[in-house]
Amino acid sequence: MAKAPVLTPQAADFPRWYQDVVAKAELADNGPVRGTMVILPYGYAIWERMQAEVDARIKAAGARNCYFPLLIPESYLRKEAAHVEGFAPELAVVTHGGGKELEEPAVVRPTSETIINTYFSKWVQSYRDLPLLVNQWANVVRWELRPRLFLRTTEFLWQEGHTCHATYDEAKAYAERILWEVYARFMVDVLAIPVLPGRKTARERFPGAINTLTCEAMMRDGKALQMGTSHELGQNFARVFGTQYSSATGQLEYVWQTSWGVSTRMVGGLIMAHGDDAGLRLPPRLAPVQAVVLVVKADGGAPEAAAALARDLAGAGVRVELDDDVEVSFGRRAVDWELKGVPVRVEIGPRDLANGEVTLVRRDTGEKRTRPLGVVVSELPALLEDIQRDLLAGATQARDARITDVATLDEAVEAAASGFGRIPWSSVGTEGENRLREQGVTVRCLRMPDGTVPAEEDTVGSLALVARAY
Amino acid sequence: MAKAPVLTPQAADFPRWYQDVVAKAELADNGPVRGTMVILPYGYAIWERMQAEVDARIKAAGARNCYFPLLIPESYLRKEAAHVEGFAPELAVVTHGGGKELEEPAVVRPTSETIINTYFSKWVQSYRDLPLLVNQWANVVRWELRPRLFLRTTEFLWQEGHTCHATYDEAKAYAERILWEVYARFMVDVLAIPVLPGRKTARERFPGAINTLTCEAMMRDGKALQMGTSHELGQNFARVFGTQYSSATGQLEYVWQTSWGVSTRMVGGLIMAHGDDAGLRLPPRLAPVQAVVLVVKADGGAPEAAAALARDLAGAGVRVELDDDVEVSFGRRAVDWELKGVPVRVEIGPRDLANGEVTLVRRDTGEKRTRPLGVVVSELPALLEDIQRDLLAGATQARDARITDVATLDEAVEAAASGFGRIPWSSVGTEGENRLREQGVTVRCLRMPDGTVPAEEDTVGSLALVARAY
Repeated sequence: MAKAPVLTPQAADFPRWYQDVVAKAELADNGPVRGTMVILPYGYAIWERMQAEVDARIKAAGARNCYFPLLIPESYLRKEAAHVEGFAPELAVVTHGGGKELEEPAVVRPTSETIINTYFSKWVQSYRDLPLLVNQWANVVRWELRPRLFLRTTEFLWQEGHTCHATYDEAKAYAERILWEVYARFMVDVLAIPVLPGRKTARERFPGAINTLTCEAMMRDGKALQMGTSHELGQNFARVFGTQYSSATGQLEYVWQTSWGVSTRMVGGLIMAHGDDAGLRLPPRLAPVQAVVLVVKADGGAPEAAAALARDLAGAGVRVELDDDVEVSFGRRAVDWELKGVPVRVEIGPRDLANGEVTLVRRDTGEKRTRPLGVVVSELPALLEDIQRDLLAGATQARDARITDVATLDEAVEAAASGFGRIPWSSVGTEGENRLREQGVTVRCLRMPDGTVPAEEDTVGSLALVARAY
Repeated sequence: MAKAPVLTPQAADFPRWYQDVVAKAELADNGPVRGTMVILPYGYAIWERMQAEVDARIKAAGARNCYFPLLIPESYLRKEAAHVEGFAPELAVVTHGGGKELEEPAVVRPTSETIINTYFSKWVQSYRDLPLLVNQWANVVRWELRPRLFLRTTEFLWQEGHTCHATYDEAKAYAERILWEVYARFMVDVLAIPVLPGRKTARERFPGAINTLTCEAMMRDGKALQMGTSHELGQNFARVFGTQYSSATGQLEYVWQTSWGVSTRMVGGLIMAHGDDAGLRLPPRLAPVQAVVLVVKADGGAPEAAAALARDLAGAGVRVELDDDVEVSFGRRAVDWELKGVPVRVEIGPRDLANGEVTLVRRDTGEKRTRPLGVVVSELPALLEDIQRDLLAGATQARDARITDVATLDEAVEAAASGFGRIPWSSVGTEGENRLREQGVTVRCLRMPDGTVPAEEDTVGSLALVARAY
């Protein structure tokens, strides 16, 4: 897998830089069917780490994993009007199976509300069955006309949570719990991305939802990326699929539902939120490889010391890799680990080692420090936490520097040329939203001045964050 | 989710018993598209445990996870003659995407050799790139005319490993390593199923392989289940897709390949290898819940003692659940945990507790013992290991009692009525194999008398295991 030596600089051409990183850090490649994606081992290792962290938080929020079929009878999709209108243009349709034309075509799931409600309507009988909280890790297909690896692909991997509750308030509270406790916490604490949770406007809602909550992140080119969404579905699907429970007083009631998901798109967000001209910069809590021990030259006991150190670090719980491939030049290997964004390089060469020392290099800052070999195992965890904290602080500073408070739509469009504009929602409204869209700018979310989510779209005082978006 | 009180006894109707267990232990349900399956939370938890154990072993064998697209251009499937012949009748075909008819239809992957070789042919250039070892966890679709939950479903979940090697010998050795170190070890050590590894006959090979290795298990009705396969693909796909490397001497050579997989079918095998008339019996190393702490009655401090014990067991690394739902009768709950196959029940009632005691019940034997509350945490791990060992020993004994050495085809068919027949392969041959098939009996695998795998189909002295199979 031959590599060209450098990336296009971010300042020269950010989209090209992104493409270069994805290719040269060996994260993904295009699939043969338009818009599909091959996720390469290093890219997949990043996704596996995301899965593990999100899965643990979902389970802590009480949801249980399960699996629903890939293929959904076409008629199911048509049952909820807004839902089919939203998804019909993106569907992949199976018309033949087992050598025969199917009596009813099946769609490859674009999302699973319809098939899951078919089962919820059987499983939910009594208020004692509520809340019903399930999640699945799955692939979905939405035909994509302008594909971009990780960000917009015809097939992507995700988790989709689906829940039933007895009341509107409980469903609303659970959708918010997922937004804050699962998604925002994961993104801030693990991905070191200071996402802005908020509420989508009616026009940006999930098809079939009564409210969509979102985590919006700023990329290093000032554009926005929607990192995950949590929807209140109200009783829309419950009414169509007959998902009802008998209450404690014997009344038959429709359940209130939520659904919520994050996807491989987060890998794209991670790349663009932290990456620099040398490649990825992975936050240590997420990184599949937190530290690489590099043998500079195969002299003076360096290979043996490096192997022993790698073993000790692994024993101390660090995700570590040993690079003793001295047939490849040291410079080339160092550049490659930089490209891959490994938070810390421990370089072990014969000269330093003669003094009992090694060199620690931080990927985020490039800072090098010479340290005694004997203290690396005990010092590394704290160094990794420093990097984690500094990446979040850096991203937060960069984000805040690019958020401009504005008063008019024209100023909002101008602000969106290099970052986010923040404008009272009362100065925008549905008509202003349409005018912004004509300029390629969208309302990313509505937030209250204190950072909370407005209770309603028309809650007084709410602010719109507007931006160009991926 | 209302349940009828009992299962059909195994002796009365084994297939019906299987259906009952799958439904009443809440493992899976039928999907709306024929042959598809909904995996319910408890069934999925079993699958997640299998995934975790198999994934760790695959990584230890050096393969890295990645992900290839679900949709494969139809023309790719046609490139390898035996492959397309084997899979064409089972394909699901996407003809429309994004509201338009596709220029080339795409098939939903039935397996991924063809799409993966398209990338291998780009990735492999030099002998230094070998061996190339990848794996993916994915869903696949093979149209199924006689579906049965977990055992034969139109969509199933699996892992598929794909590797490239420089030589025939290396590929062969790796296919065998996966068979023995990953699959057989997992099945024996974790599932407690004493599988018989062997070699498939030419007629039972994977379409496109030059050799298929298999782990065959005996179910409690004497029938066989293929639990996993590991294939030597030779250079068949490499030639068709141009997967070549330049050797150390500069020669251009085709790679030698393997592929191998295990699927959600293993859940079916687990049910039928250990289950009894009261339901599942899960081996502790696999069980998502290893012990349940049951409050018999909400009196005399039982709920508090149970909660504290469950916490302590969790702290000691036991996968434990607390059942303090005293609104449901104790008997009903005990039956339910039996149905779900949880290896140990710890029953805490006020009467025992007054003496500082609790009751431990083994699911595998039904044996009850009264023990001091204070020793449960320290004694439970050994009890779980006893159960693990005894389940394997019991399954091995049952298996061996039902293997009959025979000399003729007629005797082989008779042996297959209640178990496996073992017959010299030289007494069967391809013609005998056809005659057995007419009686619904297949050659499950060929093995040497010492339990090793014959080097070739016609290796002198090899024995055929014949059986009826799922």
